[in-house]
Amino acid sequence: MCTNMVNAGNMNGSGNLMDFLDEPFPDVGTYEDFHTIDWLREKSRDTDRHRKITNKSKESIWEFIKSLLDAWSGWVVMLLIGLLAGTLAGVIDLAVDWMTDLKEGVCLSAFWYSHEQCCWTSNEATFEDRDKCPQWQKWSELLVNKSEGASAYILNYFLYILWALLFAFLAVSLVRVFAPYACGSGIPEIKTILSGFIIRGYLGKWTLLIKTVTLVLVVSSGLSLGKEGPLVHVACCCGNFFSSLFSKYSKNEGKRREVLSAAAAAGVSVAFGAPIGGVLFSLEEVSYYFPLKTLWRSFFAALVAAFTLRSINPFGNSRLVLFYVEYHTPWYMAELFPFILLGVFGGLWGTLFIRCNIAWCRRRKTTRLGKYPVLEVIAVTAITAIIAYPNPYTRRSTSELISELFNDCGLCDYINDPNMTRPVDDIPDRPAGIGVYMAMWQLALALVFKIIITIFTFGMKIPSGLFIPSMAVGAIAGRIVGIGVEQLAYHHHDWIIFRNWCRPGADCVTPGLYAMVGAAACLGGVTRMTVSLVVIMFELTGGLEYIVPLMAAAVTSKWVADAFGKEGIYEAHIHLNGYPFLDVKDEFTHRTLATDVMRPRRGEAPLSVLTQDSMTVEDVETLIKETDYNGFPVVVSKDSERLIGFAQRRELILAIKNARQRQDGVVSNSVIYFTEEPPEVPANSPHPLKLRRILNLSPFTVTDHTPMETVVDIFRKLGLRQCLVTRSGRLLGIITKKDVLRHMAQMANQDPESIMFN
Amino acid sequence: MCTNMVNAGNMNGSGNLMDFLDEPFPDVGTYEDFHTIDWLREKSRDTDRHRKITNKSKESIWEFIKSLLDAWSGWVVMLLIGLLAGTLAGVIDLAVDWMTDLKEGVCLSAFWYSHEQCCWTSNEATFEDRDKCPQWQKWSELLVNKSEGASAYILNYFLYILWALLFAFLAVSLVRVFAPYACGSGIPEIKTILSGFIIRGYLGKWTLLIKTVTLVLVVSSGLSLGKEGPLVHVACCCGNFFSSLFSKYSKNEGKRREVLSAAAAAGVSVAFGAPIGGVLFSLEEVSYYFPLKTLWRSFFAALVAAFTLRSINPFGNSRLVLFYVEYHTPWYMAELFPFILLGVFGGLWGTLFIRCNIAWCRRRKTTRLGKYPVLEVIAVTAITAIIAYPNPYTRRSTSELISELFNDCGLCDYINDPNMTRPVDDIPDRPAGIGVYMAMWQLALALVFKIIITIFTFGMKIPSGLFIPSMAVGAIAGRIVGIGVEQLAYHHHDWIIFRNWCRPGADCVTPGLYAMVGAAACLGGVTRMTVSLVVIMFELTGGLEYIVPLMAAAVTSKWVADAFGKEGIYEAHIHLNGYPFLDVKDEFTHRTLATDVMRPRRGEAPLSVLTQDSMTVEDVETLIKETDYNGFPVVVSKDSERLIGFAQRRELILAIKNARQRQDGVVSNSVIYFTEEPPEVPANSPHPLKLRRILNLSPFTVTDHTPMETVVDIFRKLGLRQCLVTRSGRLLGIITKKDVLRHMAQMANQDPESIMFN
Repeated sequence: MCTNMVNAGNMNGSGNLMDFLDEPFPDVGTYEDFHTIDWLREKSRDTDRHRKITNKSKESIWEFIKSLLDAWSGWVVMLLIGLLAGTLAGVIDLAVDWMTDLKEGVCLSAFWYSHEQCCWTSNEATFEDRDKCPQWQKWSELLVNKSEGASAYILNYFLYILWALLFAFLAVSLVRVFAPYACGSGIPEIKTILSGFIIRGYLGKWTLLIKTVTLVLVVSSGLSLGKEGPLVHVACCCGNFFSSLFSKYSKNEGKRREVLSAAAAAGVSVAFGAPIGGVLFSLEEVSYYFPLKTLWRSFFAALVAAFTLRSINPFGNSRLVLFYVEYHTPWYMAELFPFILLGVFGGLWGTLFIRCNIAWCRRRKTTRLGKYPVLEVIAVTAITAIIAYPNPYTRRSTSELISELFNDCGLCDYINDPNMTRPVDDIPDRPAGIGVYMAMWQLALALVFKIIITIFTFGMKIPSGLFIPSMAVGAIAGRIVGIGVEQLAYHHHDWIIFRNWCRPGADCVTPGLYAMVGAAACLGGVTRMTVSLVVIMFELTGGLEYIVPLMAAAVTSKWVADAFGKEGIYEAHIHLNGYPFLDVKDEFTHRTLATDVMRPRRGEAPLSVLTQDSMTVEDVETLIKETDYNGFPVVVSKDSERLIGFAQRRELILAIKNARQRQDGVVSNSVIYFTEEPPEVPANSPHPLKLRRILNLSPFTVTDHTPMETVVDIFRKLGLRQCLVTRSGRLLGIITKKDVLRHMAQMANQDPESIMFN
Repeated sequence: MCTNMVNAGNMNGSGNLMDFLDEPFPDVGTYEDFHTIDWLREKSRDTDRHRKITNKSKESIWEFIKSLLDAWSGWVVMLLIGLLAGTLAGVIDLAVDWMTDLKEGVCLSAFWYSHEQCCWTSNEATFEDRDKCPQWQKWSELLVNKSEGASAYILNYFLYILWALLFAFLAVSLVRVFAPYACGSGIPEIKTILSGFIIRGYLGKWTLLIKTVTLVLVVSSGLSLGKEGPLVHVACCCGNFFSSLFSKYSKNEGKRREVLSAAAAAGVSVAFGAPIGGVLFSLEEVSYYFPLKTLWRSFFAALVAAFTLRSINPFGNSRLVLFYVEYHTPWYMAELFPFILLGVFGGLWGTLFIRCNIAWCRRRKTTRLGKYPVLEVIAVTAITAIIAYPNPYTRRSTSELISELFNDCGLCDYINDPNMTRPVDDIPDRPAGIGVYMAMWQLALALVFKIIITIFTFGMKIPSGLFIPSMAVGAIAGRIVGIGVEQLAYHHHDWIIFRNWCRPGADCVTPGLYAMVGAAACLGGVTRMTVSLVVIMFELTGGLEYIVPLMAAAVTSKWVADAFGKEGIYEAHIHLNGYPFLDVKDEFTHRTLATDVMRPRRGEAPLSVLTQDSMTVEDVETLIKETDYNGFPVVVSKDSERLIGFAQRRELILAIKNARQRQDGVVSNSVIYFTEEPPEVPANSPHPLKLRRILNLSPFTVTDHTPMETVVDIFRKLGLRQCLVTRSGRLLGIITKKDVLRHMAQMANQDPESIMFN
């Protein structure tokens, strides 16, 4: 008996407590909704499982095969995630293409063709006029048989708005009715989940389905939002779905998060066609606990996803990347100045966006505004559609706009050169004609419009990403600056800064590159991504040539934005929602000690503890009823306060319930023993209840003199839920993750009550 | 006084103990050679420093500027490292080029020109015969005026061997006399240093200088070794040098390691011209503690280094990468089979190489062989030169060979086609002529030779990397397989596997791609790199197209090699040398507890502890003299065994020495107090010595029931040196990093005594 008990003690230490119970209680080892997981415990549970399988595998061939399957299941899950995420991304791309064009017209030969596909299949279209063919009819042509004139314009305008409203209404209704978690970009919540938080249903099958469908609807409705962030959420839902098929992942919250990290990489991989950038994004931005094994698997998932998307070929050009660009001219040192200016712009935009958006979202949360989400979406869609239609740069989809701005010849049509019939690559700088000035005006208006409307769009109750709107803002600003520099260089090529590299007639300035640098700067300002941003952009251009401009802009943008506030948009939304997220990037540099943070504070009631051999079942039940702590330290006696372990509330309740039901003689008066061997009880006293098996014999302790920065580090690196504080072996208090977060908020002069979950 | 003491206590907790001493003792806070650092302590020291600077910066403009400079010093160090590492790599490349050619001949117009430069500057050379020009004379032409014939051949052969011996002798002598640490690839030691170990002088200025010079010599001597691994060492030496210029890094071993991680990335970046691959290599393979801030800075350093190298342009082609390749044909599904076969070959080669090399190195270490390093180098060089010269594939430098094997047309000359005057790209598959069969034989011989000689070369007392030899082995094997498949496809294009994609006259098989896949597989088998390997290869080809073959080969190679043993070559060498390296990748899955590992074991003498208020100076001095522990726990009293803190041996010695010298009344009989306030002493008793200031009040503790896997995790993630073991608040024992490593070795059935340092 004794050895068995010692063993049971050992087992508890490693978190596996089911082995030595007659039958495992249901739900032991799971967590409640909106609670934090214990990483160390999840890890030891997985090691136990692994050990069991390894031992069993020596018994028979069948068990050996099963152990092999178990070892391979990680790769299988990655493969499945890659395939599904790639397929969904392809389907979304195709559907968005079709529905965006549906707002303007319809293909007569087959209504499910988008404008481009419609004319592509038409034999009558020449290469020059690829987007004009008889099969494709604008609504005015189809309905009133008129393609020009004011009435046709108004009809088209009206139908454009109508379609947009229809799509947006459908989307917001679907989200409200079926899957409220499908709204937003999902990245803040995924970051929180990956850091070890439970939000049930956030990555569920309904969320997956509804988010995919509504994503298509909202992007097609022309709202100022992107599908890239939500694609990460979609990919994580895929990851969650497939991990639920394998008990290795479904039963272990820690292992499941490894799969989700890889899924996030696959999501970015298909969003931009950048597998390496996706892995780095997951590593840098999203993931919390990222073992190297995960790096390799994430890379695999990201590649599979990218290749699946390519074989679906939604863009019809066999390109993996979203914005394929190829520049022919190098950049020059003097151009670093405008690039850095764009970086400053990006940083300022990031700050402005984050502040205004958070203020607006807080307003939505706290005032009556939040009660009418459908109305809000309808209103914003109507405003967007009304303002967007007249301007050719905002009428088309945002990713098309970015693509045109990135491409060297995106604005060639506007350059006033009668000898030039159609745009070709590598044309020399030329003077701006009336077309360019017109385009500049339209772009400037588009810039202002995008800046304002994006602030109100992000955070509504529909799926919405902000990679694309941010990049659009940056690309417009960059293109404007680029054309400005080009004209400056053309008209003043004798200036000292241009003289060395810009002779007349040469193609020395690439406005498309400026657009790209601007896009990187704005994206960096909003999200504070660094390496992954540059790598994604590098994968888009495919050359190391332009990495220096991109880095210069990204660094400047981050510095400028950080000067106004350290938080990126995702962290800001995490704080807004009060999630318990302990950021790895935050540095805690204050001089407080564990004793300043632990509870009970001076003057508060003493810590609720259990004693190892003197409390009855009733005492414990009262304690559980009167407090809402997640667990209780167990001490030798109330006098000595020497710590022997920690018991989880959830498991105490389950164990007592279980014992009362099944174990004869356990009544309210039974004494609970956490010791190895309970003493002999007199015959007439009630049967004792032995609970050592649910006791965690290796609770984490620090001394009261431990500096808080060390405590924060321990919480971060080991993923603890709570930590006990001792002095010379006596238990003094407890620090939970919530306490740590509240203390950090306080030190940063924020409201500590904003941290809401534990 | 009381508050001050409490404060002093707090300070100790955070590791900074100098503030409250009259004068800091010298050497406090540094470590001894061949000891492990305490990461937590280094981190809190840095936070203290940072805090002090931030507080001061508010005092005056000058302090504010100083604080800005301090904040920017990280970027400055990165810039300097990038510049120096890039320059050194460029100089090494140029020197190696020249000296390798010197073995065969000399340039008459300027003796410091390499063969290619010599003919490049010559006007008489046509483009076709770029490597034939009158200015370049073979030794036989210069000395006996004969370029053909047996005697000329023998003379050239003889001089080739003579030069090789001269270079090798010079190299080994320089290493022996000036910088013994300059030998080997340096990566195992750098991994150990980055994990928190001190090896003084390993990254010193002499090592930098001698390693750079001897690297040129040994590579030029034609030995089967590469310069890529040693370049990482050289870059780390640069990093160490520049970090010694800034007190932020020179005085903090933790911060210094951040710089070294980035320097390693810069090293790989210049070695292959792959900045992203370099950063991932540093992250995946070399670094231990890699905060995200370091990721961004490493990327910066890697980019600066790459661009510096490119502006030096040692290869004369404006290419960043070592082996630039461009393939024109896609690969087909059926080709995955030979690619996977190459992966298997790579895995087998990795296993064979690691086993044989380690066996040979162990023999060198333990037998008399190790006493004649110069003779060994001379012998191996002689054998290498004698065997290498007759075979055209081994005579040239290994990187040239790899480059030729990678290139699609590397072996075109051998293909028997009279109509073809010079190789062009994109030629259809053709039948093999006699030249190809000849080449196959020579390649096969070269393969066997390289395999055998590399085993004996790696580990000699000269700088030697094994990236290039491994890649050469793989490239040769791959090229042979590739040509085999090509011929098979040509002669049997009606076979079902070829029918779909290989019509006669088409260029369907790219043997160069096979060489590249083989190289990746062999490199992966030896080093067990995964993501970084694929990314480096991806940066060489610059297209995502070929990532699937590379990944397939890399994964297969890793699986095959891992099946025979989990250790890569670097880990194997770390174990061979007994360094205390706690690998992040090793999983500890045994079921032992802290109580099984801690000292004292059952039956051993009790733990040496200090008491807080009852030991005299003499008692402590005796204890220090009689034991060699690095530190002592301090308890309330020997009876209660309640832990209050931990005192480092080094600091105890310094404090007592200091007190005896400067503090009146401190004699051998003085009682040492670790309490907050020592009691009043009677007038006639000796003056007490208060040492609370050197006491670490937050020692790390675990309970005796903590599973060892958790303990290992804590040691790894927090970078501890030691951890105290308690049970219900009583001190039971201590676990040091060495104990952990020895226990892990024991559990893996290895000799625990092989771990030699603490």
